Amino acid sequence: MKFEIIHKSKKSRARVGKIHTPHGTIDTPSFVAVGTNGTLKALSNQMVEEIGLQLMFCNTYHLLLQPGIEVVREAGGLHSFINRKQPLITDSGGFQVFSLAYGSVQNELKSRGQKKGDGCLLKISEEGALFRSYRDGAKILLTPESSIQAQKDLGADIIIPLDELPPYHIEHDELKKSLARTHRWEKRSLDAHLKNPNNQAIYGVIHGGIDPELRKLSCETLTDLPFDGYAIGGSVGKNRDELRELVSFTRPLLPDEKPNHLLGIGDLPSIEELVPLGIDTFDSSYPTRAARHGFLLTHDGGIKISSTKHAKTFSPIEKECSCPTCEHYSLAYLHHLFKARETTALTLASIHNLHYMVSLMDHYRTQILQDQI
Amino acid sequence: MKFEIIHKSKKSRARVGKIHTPHGTIDTPSFVAVGTNGTLKALSNQMVEEIGLQLMFCNTYHLLLQPGIEVVREAGGLHSFINRKQPLITDSGGFQVFSLAYGSVQNELKSRGQKKGDGCLLKISEEGALFRSYRDGAKILLTPESSIQAQKDLGADIIIPLDELPPYHIEHDELKKSLARTHRWEKRSLDAHLKNPNNQAIYGVIHGGIDPELRKLSCETLTDLPFDGYAIGGSVGKNRDELRELVSFTRPLLPDEKPNHLLGIGDLPSIEELVPLGIDTFDSSYPTRAARHGFLLTHDGGIKISSTKHAKTFSPIEKECSCPTCEHYSLAYLHHLFKARETTALTLASIHNLHYMVSLMDHYRTQILQDQI
Repeated sequence: MKFEIIHKSKKSRARVGKIHTPHGTIDTPSFVAVGTNGTLKALSNQMVEEIGLQLMFCNTYHLLLQPGIEVVREAGGLHSFINRKQPLITDSGGFQVFSLAYGSVQNELKSRGQKKGDGCLLKISEEGALFRSYRDGAKILLTPESSIQAQKDLGADIIIPLDELPPYHIEHDELKKSLARTHRWEKRSLDAHLKNPNNQAIYGVIHGGIDPELRKLSCETLTDLPFDGYAIGGSVGKNRDELRELVSFTRPLLPDEKPNHLLGIGDLPSIEELVPLGIDTFDSSYPTRAARHGFLLTHDGGIKISSTKHAKTFSPIEKECSCPTCEHYSLAYLHHLFKARETTALTLASIHNLHYMVSLMDHYRTQILQDQI
Repeated sequence: MKFEIIHKSKKSRARVGKIHTPHGTIDTPSFVAVGTNGTLKALSNQMVEEIGLQLMFCNTYHLLLQPGIEVVREAGGLHSFINRKQPLITDSGGFQVFSLAYGSVQNELKSRGQKKGDGCLLKISEEGALFRSYRDGAKILLTPESSIQAQKDLGADIIIPLDELPPYHIEHDELKKSLARTHRWEKRSLDAHLKNPNNQAIYGVIHGGIDPELRKLSCETLTDLPFDGYAIGGSVGKNRDELRELVSFTRPLLPDEKPNHLLGIGDLPSIEELVPLGIDTFDSSYPTRAARHGFLLTHDGGIKISSTKHAKTFSPIEKECSCPTCEHYSLAYLHHLFKARETTALTLASIHNLHYMVSLMDHYRTQILQDQI
């Protein structure tokens, strides 16, 4: 992997770059769509290619359980198995394993730490995390080394070391202990990776919750190691103010010459705030999930497609939009398909929202090149 | 509409023809896919166009209730509303209204007439059928004239008169009465149509259940009227033997110079048996429904995609198949998507099965041209 900085804005920390990978280039800042099981929901990888998505995020945890890493390895790796020619990034599997214990990020935040997940995390030790497969009940030990081995077999262009994901609501001492272990796990992951780089890049994941001192410690510890890039992970705050504060503080502690990624954030207001702070890539399932719930992204705040006011809107979602959905179908037809509970609706809405994100990032890159943001 | 016979087989009653409509040509024998709500399930009309489906069947009953005929009329008709450039056929709405009373064809057959539908058919009279909308509880009277008016507003290339659908299990006297009323309804439908032909064709629907005398009466009565073609409807038997017998008897009573259609039958063995008997078009939701249930059509009996034996089959569904699914994806990937319950799987499987039907009918036409069937 090679990271090339094309232009640094004169107005902010924003920059336009190119991440060159064995499967092609990612223009940054970039939106990274989430295709958990090797497909974006309701879209084929062929459609995603036509829309021009440059980087797709797949989840090692899910692929580990179904179809199993062995199947993907025998297929010749994930690109070949899912027939995606463009770049892929996989995570370590840790995020989902720990979500099983603590509940999803949103549930944990809402419940103020009281509500635990109903999942099957059995034990966390220095060695790794032991969990039970939801598919067949088998016990699986996820270690830094086994996660990296899985990601070698998957063969994504960018991989992620095993980390622990402590919840937002955690005692300081616990967070500190977790951070230290995460650093040891990341070092072991890196060592395992470097034994067989396999033309893959690995991003260190900065932790420390919302504690500035711990975030600083994490940046110092991990930037001393030869990671190819850095992701900001862990709890990034309970709202957008905390998120902005955290990124403002953390981002300058990361090396400018390496690409950085913000894990799990991809709503429009956050991207707008964080591009000027110098974030290069954002992954989120928000745009495609919103589409499936009938929320269409537009330049004036979005459209709730099930609203009866769209029953007779015989124009496309946005007149200027060049996506296949807007090219062919009206809001009234989409409204009808949603009302009639046709899955075609989910596909057409997802096409639009994904195309919207790709265009939006293209627009941001143009603005940065002109020092407008 | 103009029907052109290209070739009559020397070996059977099979023929190759072309139905010319205002929205293009239908090569017969042809498979007609069912897009109840103005879309094939899990496919966009753009995909369906690319696959080359020449005639799509939409259901007036469903469109009447959602989005409502007024919306479609304001959109400029169904072709415009759903953005389909190729031919469309709509039914009268009667089939669904009567299914509400008698239960679906399969349930009625299974229950030997004991089980009724739980629907909302309120009253059948000489005037028409009164039913309650499942959407808003409103009472709707479907008459020959209102059905034709709805189909005028929808603007399909081929429309169907209102008929009653008596169940398979019915007393002879009841069936006779129903048939007489259906004939009166069809005549009224035709009269309403002829007041405003609107460049649409109308097919008379032959009834009479499995009673040869009544079928004969129906053919005589309706072929005396200037319908543009004929559909074989009503109960067509409880199994394939009864179906074949019925078509063998009925088909020769229909005029050769007009196109004919078999309503609601489209499984592979039936098509294979009935093409030589001279059926021109077949509609069925079977191929797309089978796809959604993970059954893929192939030349050697089909594939149950969820079977574990396909977990590592890294070749396409069929090597010779030129559909977008077989072009891009392996059985192993499709197996994985079904196991992971990704709706993408439904789309990819539906593409294959629809393409299979289009290719199959093309193959039958070639065989007929060569007098092989």
